[in-house]
Amino acid sequence: MAGYKILVLHGPNLNLLGQRDPGVYGTRTLQDIDQMLTKRASELKAEVESFQSNSEGALIDKIQQAYSDVDGILVNPGALTHYSYSLRDALSAAALPLVEVHLSNVFSRESFRHHSVISPIADGMLCGLGADSYILGLEALLKIIKNQRS
Amino acid sequence: MAGYKILVLHGPNLNLLGQRDPGVYGTRTLQDIDQMLTKRASELKAEVESFQSNSEGALIDKIQQAYSDVDGILVNPGALTHYSYSLRDALSAAALPLVEVHLSNVFSRESFRHHSVISPIADGMLCGLGADSYILGLEALLKIIKNQRS
Amino acid sequence: MAGYKILVLHGPNLNLLGQRDPGVYGTRTLQDIDQMLTKRASELKAEVESFQSNSEGALIDKIQQAYSDVDGILVNPGALTHYSYSLRDALSAAALPLVEVHLSNVFSRESFRHHSVISPIADGMLCGLGADSYILGLEALLKIIKNQRS
Amino acid sequence: MAGYKILVLHGPNLNLLGQRDPGVYGTRTLQDIDQMLTKRASELKAEVESFQSNSEGALIDKIQQAYSDVDGILVNPGALTHYSYSLRDALSAAALPLVEVHLSNVFSRESFRHHSVISPIADGMLCGLGADSYILGLEALLKIIKNQRS
Amino acid sequence: MAGYKILVLHGPNLNLLGQRDPGVYGTRTLQDIDQMLTKRASELKAEVESFQSNSEGALIDKIQQAYSDVDGILVNPGALTHYSYSLRDALSAAALPLVEVHLSNVFSRESFRHHSVISPIADGMLCGLGADSYILGLEALLKIIKNQRS
Amino acid sequence: MAGYKILVLHGPNLNLLGQRDPGVYGTRTLQDIDQMLTKRASELKAEVESFQSNSEGALIDKIQQAYSDVDGILVNPGALTHYSYSLRDALSAAALPLVEVHLSNVFSRESFRHHSVISPIADGMLCGLGADSYILGLEALLKIIKNQRS
Amino acid sequence: MAGYKILVLHGPNLNLLGQRDPGVYGTRTLQDIDQMLTKRASELKAEVESFQSNSEGALIDKIQQAYSDVDGILVNPGALTHYSYSLRDALSAAALPLVEVHLSNVFSRESFRHHSVISPIADGMLCGLGADSYILGLEALLKIIKNQRS
Amino acid sequence: MAGYKILVLHGPNLNLLGQRDPGVYGTRTLQDIDQMLTKRASELKAEVESFQSNSEGALIDKIQQAYSDVDGILVNPGALTHYSYSLRDALSAAALPLVEVHLSNVFSRESFRHHSVISPIADGMLCGLGADSYILGLEALLKIIKNQRS
Amino acid sequence: MAGYKILVLHGPNLNLLGQRDPGVYGTRTLQDIDQMLTKRASELKAEVESFQSNSEGALIDKIQQAYSDVDGILVNPGALTHYSYSLRDALSAAALPLVEVHLSNVFSRESFRHHSVISPIADGMLCGLGADSYILGLEALLKIIKNQRS
Amino acid sequence: MAGYKILVLHGPNLNLLGQRDPGVYGTRTLQDIDQMLTKRASELKAEVESFQSNSEGALIDKIQQAYSDVDGILVNPGALTHYSYSLRDALSAAALPLVEVHLSNVFSRESFRHHSVISPIADGMLCGLGADSYILGLEALLKIIKNQRS
Amino acid sequence: MAGYKILVLHGPNLNLLGQRDPGVYGTRTLQDIDQMLTKRASELKAEVESFQSNSEGALIDKIQQAYSDVDGILVNPGALTHYSYSLRDALSAAALPLVEVHLSNVFSRESFRHHSVISPIADGMLCGLGADSYILGLEALLKIIKNQRS
Amino acid sequence: MAGYKILVLHGPNLNLLGQRDPGVYGTRTLQDIDQMLTKRASELKAEVESFQSNSEGALIDKIQQAYSDVDGILVNPGALTHYSYSLRDALSAAALPLVEVHLSNVFSRESFRHHSVISPIADGMLCGLGADSYILGLEALLKIIKNQRS
Repeated sequence: MAGYKILVLHGPNLNLLGQRDPGVYGTRTLQDIDQMLTKRASELKAEVESFQSNSEGALIDKIQQAYSDVDGILVNPGALTHYSYSLRDALSAAALPLVEVHLSNVFSRESFRHHSVISPIADGMLCGLGADSYILGLEALLKIIKNQRS
Repeated sequence: MAGYKILVLHGPNLNLLGQRDPGVYGTRTLQDIDQMLTKRASELKAEVESFQSNSEGALIDKIQQAYSDVDGILVNPGALTHYSYSLRDALSAAALPLVEVHLSNVFSRESFRHHSVISPIADGMLCGLGADSYILGLEALLKIIKNQRS
Repeated sequence: MAGYKILVLHGPNLNLLGQRDPGVYGTRTLQDIDQMLTKRASELKAEVESFQSNSEGALIDKIQQAYSDVDGILVNPGALTHYSYSLRDALSAAALPLVEVHLSNVFSRESFRHHSVISPIADGMLCGLGADSYILGLEALLKIIKNQRS
Repeated sequence: MAGYKILVLHGPNLNLLGQRDPGVYGTRTLQDIDQMLTKRASELKAEVESFQSNSEGALIDKIQQAYSDVDGILVNPGALTHYSYSLRDALSAAALPLVEVHLSNVFSRESFRHHSVISPIADGMLCGLGADSYILGLEALLKIIKNQRS
Repeated sequence: MAGYKILVLHGPNLNLLGQRDPGVYGTRTLQDIDQMLTKRASELKAEVESFQSNSEGALIDKIQQAYSDVDGILVNPGALTHYSYSLRDALSAAALPLVEVHLSNVFSRESFRHHSVISPIADGMLCGLGADSYILGLEALLKIIKNQRS
Repeated sequence: MAGYKILVLHGPNLNLLGQRDPGVYGTRTLQDIDQMLTKRASELKAEVESFQSNSEGALIDKIQQAYSDVDGILVNPGALTHYSYSLRDALSAAALPLVEVHLSNVFSRESFRHHSVISPIADGMLCGLGADSYILGLEALLKIIKNQRS
Repeated sequence: MAGYKILVLHGPNLNLLGQRDPGVYGTRTLQDIDQMLTKRASELKAEVESFQSNSEGALIDKIQQAYSDVDGILVNPGALTHYSYSLRDALSAAALPLVEVHLSNVFSRESFRHHSVISPIADGMLCGLGADSYILGLEALLKIIKNQRS
Repeated sequence: MAGYKILVLHGPNLNLLGQRDPGVYGTRTLQDIDQMLTKRASELKAEVESFQSNSEGALIDKIQQAYSDVDGILVNPGALTHYSYSLRDALSAAALPLVEVHLSNVFSRESFRHHSVISPIADGMLCGLGADSYILGLEALLKIIKNQRS
Repeated sequence: MAGYKILVLHGPNLNLLGQRDPGVYGTRTLQDIDQMLTKRASELKAEVESFQSNSEGALIDKIQQAYSDVDGILVNPGALTHYSYSLRDALSAAALPLVEVHLSNVFSRESFRHHSVISPIADGMLCGLGADSYILGLEALLKIIKNQRS
Repeated sequence: MAGYKILVLHGPNLNLLGQRDPGVYGTRTLQDIDQMLTKRASELKAEVESFQSNSEGALIDKIQQAYSDVDGILVNPGALTHYSYSLRDALSAAALPLVEVHLSNVFSRESFRHHSVISPIADGMLCGLGADSYILGLEALLKIIKNQRS
Repeated sequence: MAGYKILVLHGPNLNLLGQRDPGVYGTRTLQDIDQMLTKRASELKAEVESFQSNSEGALIDKIQQAYSDVDGILVNPGALTHYSYSLRDALSAAALPLVEVHLSNVFSRESFRHHSVISPIADGMLCGLGADSYILGLEALLKIIKNQRS
Repeated sequence: MAGYKILVLHGPNLNLLGQRDPGVYGTRTLQDIDQMLTKRASELKAEVESFQSNSEGALIDKIQQAYSDVDGILVNPGALTHYSYSLRDALSAAALPLVEVHLSNVFSRESFRHHSVISPIADGMLCGLGADSYILGLEALLKIIKNQRS
């Protein structure tokens, strides 16, 4: 698992983590999560680049700029999960191993959160595990990359 | 009602007011409406800050920058009303008194305009009153703030 | 705005206001609201006639008796909102400026309350503002009347 | 066809005929229609009793009072057509020949008017013929009665 | 009502009348009905031309050949009622007074029979009256023609 | 269970019991059922007050007049079961123990009878037991009252 | 009512009663309920045989073994209520008086609990009455048996 | 057709053309398509201005800046086709001849691609023709403009 | 593009073009369109054979007779577009390049016109361009054929 | 089973068998199938008459001409299966034993093929067995006829 | 067809055949059917092993134990047809020729019986032929096996 | 994380892992997965007890026997995921930390696999990661337990 590079994408409002609705999303900030990811990646001889935006267009721009330099994408699309076919097309065009994560269990919340337009094109999905959705999602993604290369 | 500060958000295409479809939206420009809001706010010892954008991301950015400095939000989400769960999450995270307004009666127009993803998290909603949707919405919002503080 | 006469209609169960479910509907009685409306109308040189009934038929009778003597209708149809096509037809036949109001935010309650059969024929709608839904609805209605006459 | 007695029921808002929406419903008043029905019935040696109410309950009361004295029912349920399962049950309990009529073509108007809860228990239905819906409906009803008795 | 000419169209399987399912459709043959129509038309100083086909295409051909020579169309589309948008377009293109009839009450039969693609473009509809659906439909059609010309 | 007072409400058309459709509703009249309820109540040291109306409004009026004097409500809403959100709101506002009953098994009849707008706010529901739906419903209601008070 | 024998069936998870979710299901154990049923049956000169299983197949086996020896079935199908067409077919094949019971009011819980595949083939249904759903259900069932035999 | 100016809009991810999914979208890059459009426009004495963005907001901004300087709009909205009511409103406000194009046949792909929120306000639509969707779309647009002006 | 032969199919009612509803379909007759197609084909060194029928069966017969002699099919299925799975199967069995055209923008008309059963098996679709839908459709079809052969 | 006569109907496009899509429909031609049916019928002392048409109307005409001379109908309605209520009515009017067959397993193909408007009026249905669907369907039909006569 | 071994699976309640609902399922017992299958198999040089269970789990266990020893599966899933995705997965995992049979015509019974979760993974389906559904299903299955092996 | 005990439940057909559909589920057997879980648990100072059954009832029995002795449940419900409300109720009654896992990405498979009746009551869900869904699911579950206890 040496040297893989992972793009971590955080969708709209995730920059508010730790400030917003701690009962649902926990008390960790996005910086905390990015540091945990960097640390865990480093233990696994990998590297992460994180990017957050409230703008669908900026997230797509980032994917297009980065996809030829990374080995996989870990994405928490925030509420774009439920309607952004444009983000889906950008992730699909990247044609890279893809893991979708959510901090909360989307299936026990409002019904509009039960449907993801991203999941059908992802390799795997994890939700409801708080910050561990990211950490375990990173581990899973690295294994998927390794398996595909082996 | 002294000294409350209100963030007024105008969604996509509302900058065209007065130029576009006067049969539906009237002849007042967005500048006219903002001036009316400033005047009415001033009469009520309040203050408004207006922001218009055609970009969902910019509207969310604005909410995140402003929400700790304002006492309530008055929002006309434009067509984002009908699908922007990201805007909804941003408004919900702000956890402020929230009033949603529409110039036209959305319920007598195309069926896609009958459903708002914002309404379930708003305190109240006004539509069909032209520029008065904003003015009366501002009054309503100030009363809600006052009631919550009393 | 001198001399306009407004018919205010309150649908089923609204006579219980102040006694019923104060968490949802507030503590004001219907008498309080009617007095507030009378007072506000008077400030605006208008006059209101209020009528409450638990009977769809009686509400329709009232509309038919009054419509040629009034300049506009302010209606809170109560739960008839969601199924009374007969009330809709009566209001539509009156062919007067019409504003629909609800004390609570119907869009954050049970799903059957999200659909109004009255809204498509109203000029405007206000909800979630407590007694202010009525007061601001009255102001809006008077402006609509004035605009149509000018 | 000698001596049959027919109950004619007019639902909510039909008392406004001739005053309301002449483009849709024509210029004849309900009195005109009742006179036309009386005249046509008399030509066919029959008799009609007409009853209009804006109240679902009063219509049901009338059916219960009259049904043992009449030979058939001609009903224009107005907007109750679309939701009054109570009126349906009353008409069904009467167990008499039943013809449903509508002045306008309900199938070329708003979609809620396309569904009748009364039609499944009627013998026949006529719509879109203006006052002739009633006159031809009366003739049809008298033939149905005569056929059942022969 | 002197001299009007009416095209009577009978859709698929109506040539079996009198042989098929008498409990639902009665014992009269299509020839009986055509004779009744001819007789009634003659009493009303009108003329009918009848055409039956089991083929949607042949019915459309007939409409295109006849429409400039007739004053109105009386149609029982049989089961084409429920899906033939082609027949609908042909009848709509004819731009003539149009009355749709059904022998049985389609609303008390299988659910697929509850929806007509023809009704929205007809002037009126009659059903459930057996052969009288045709006779009364003819009378109604002649009155509609007369009214339009007056 | 000494001294509890129960309001028994019978909706539209239930006054026809014993005369109407005995295969579905049995041969007992509403008077028979009221007497059985009175007798059973008396055995259980309780008292019943019965009220039937064909009018939704009158039923709501009755609930509003009676609710502060009774300990629970036993309701057979008749066909209002399926659409009367106004009756639902009145029963809900009464905030009393509530048992809904139906003589027939509504789930083996027409599909519109499978949905009750009342059930979600009732404590319990019984159907299909003929007059015993009322008698057992009364017993159940008295136990619910007793349990809540103990 | 002398000597009737009743099969009482308890579906999946009902053996947990008294341990599980007492807010919803009460504190009585299934043993308590079976004893109450035995006692009440004995008072009514009847006999009950109770059977609980978490296995759909075992419940069907039991019905097939017992149905020729019993006079009626009282069933709480647990969550099988909502999807077990196999259990429905077994109960239907038994062709015995059948009463369905639920401890809680299924209509005020999750939406999947609002639909029963069993109710259309039952004679009656009771819900929301706690253990009394069973006791009153037993009484109702015995009356249905008695009525059918008389 | 001399001198017409056309705004060509390319939605999200279309800048990846030629790199992404050539089986679906072909091997031509967006630059190739823009050059083909420029050439064809020039042959037809017209001029095109092309704009691509991954951001809904930027596309709307562009429309608002350009619409008074151009004679028509040719748009491939990418995946915004399926949900961007904001883009629809911007295009609708421009009130210019509008042709929608898609490289692939959207109707033979995933079901979410079968619905366009843009088509109802376009003059015409072309899909499935690869780069020719643009070229032929440009020709069609120029003819529409010419027809409207003649 | 030398020598390709194209079958042009016109569905029901298209023979009325120029006579019927010119606001929707324009003033050109089908003969005009066929001549325009012949001329344009000839410019492109191709040949067209046109066939119109009001009969689904005749259209299918034609496809079966012609398909081994032609290089592609251009079809305007008229209202068969919306339900003729038989026509779809015939076109699919032909296994030839296929372009579907409509004169009007079907997406801005009645909702039943928004769904085509033909589109999923076509190569491309054009609509809303009047007679140019055919001309540009022919050009597109010839390019598709040429591409497949190259 | 001596001497029974069977009408075999083949719907649209089945005349292409063996030429069209052999992966789905096999390599046998319709002539092969008709010969197999004739041979198998002869072994069973029966006789078949086969008829194929691409025209719904011609199929209905055939049923009407033949039904009084045959003992049963074996039908493969082709794509008419999914929408031809006219064919259904013709088959239903014939009131003969009826078996529906399909070469392919319609339930593993496009979703529109999962619904048959014919199946509810057939005695039995067989699909997915290639030419054996016909042969076994014939055997089944002959047994049904024999059973009904015994 | 020498020596093939077939697993015959009978789902819940099929052991009641001959005792239950003879109007729907006939008078033959499951033993009769198994004997008929054994006899017919023997004529075709094949062998059958039959297994009935009321338990979904036992049916799956049987499939897992048997699938490597048999050449095909003939299954009547009983009511599991309509919901047992677990049985579907077991049958699918077996990866053997599979024919689904039903005694009655499921498409003319309750609507829940119109959908099979098994059919999409079967090779073929037969229904409505009584015991012959099994016998003909066996013949069909043996031909499918033979074809696959040839 | 010392000493926690985890119940691992495998639903129907998972005992076939490694034998069945390796393209979808991989080549590891269930024994392999159980050993991996045992090993990983041991590294984390925890213990797992695994149980597989094809029977819904047996899985529920196991949960009821084990739940008071374990600290959390890791469940792969197999196809029961999509309909077993009984399994859901058993897991819910256990009131323990619960993680749901799937080997494949259920959201990119058949549509019936997109809905889980278990997810709304789970703490978290992981899918699409092959055997790692279990391993990472175990890690996540142990962290959830630890967090709840801290």
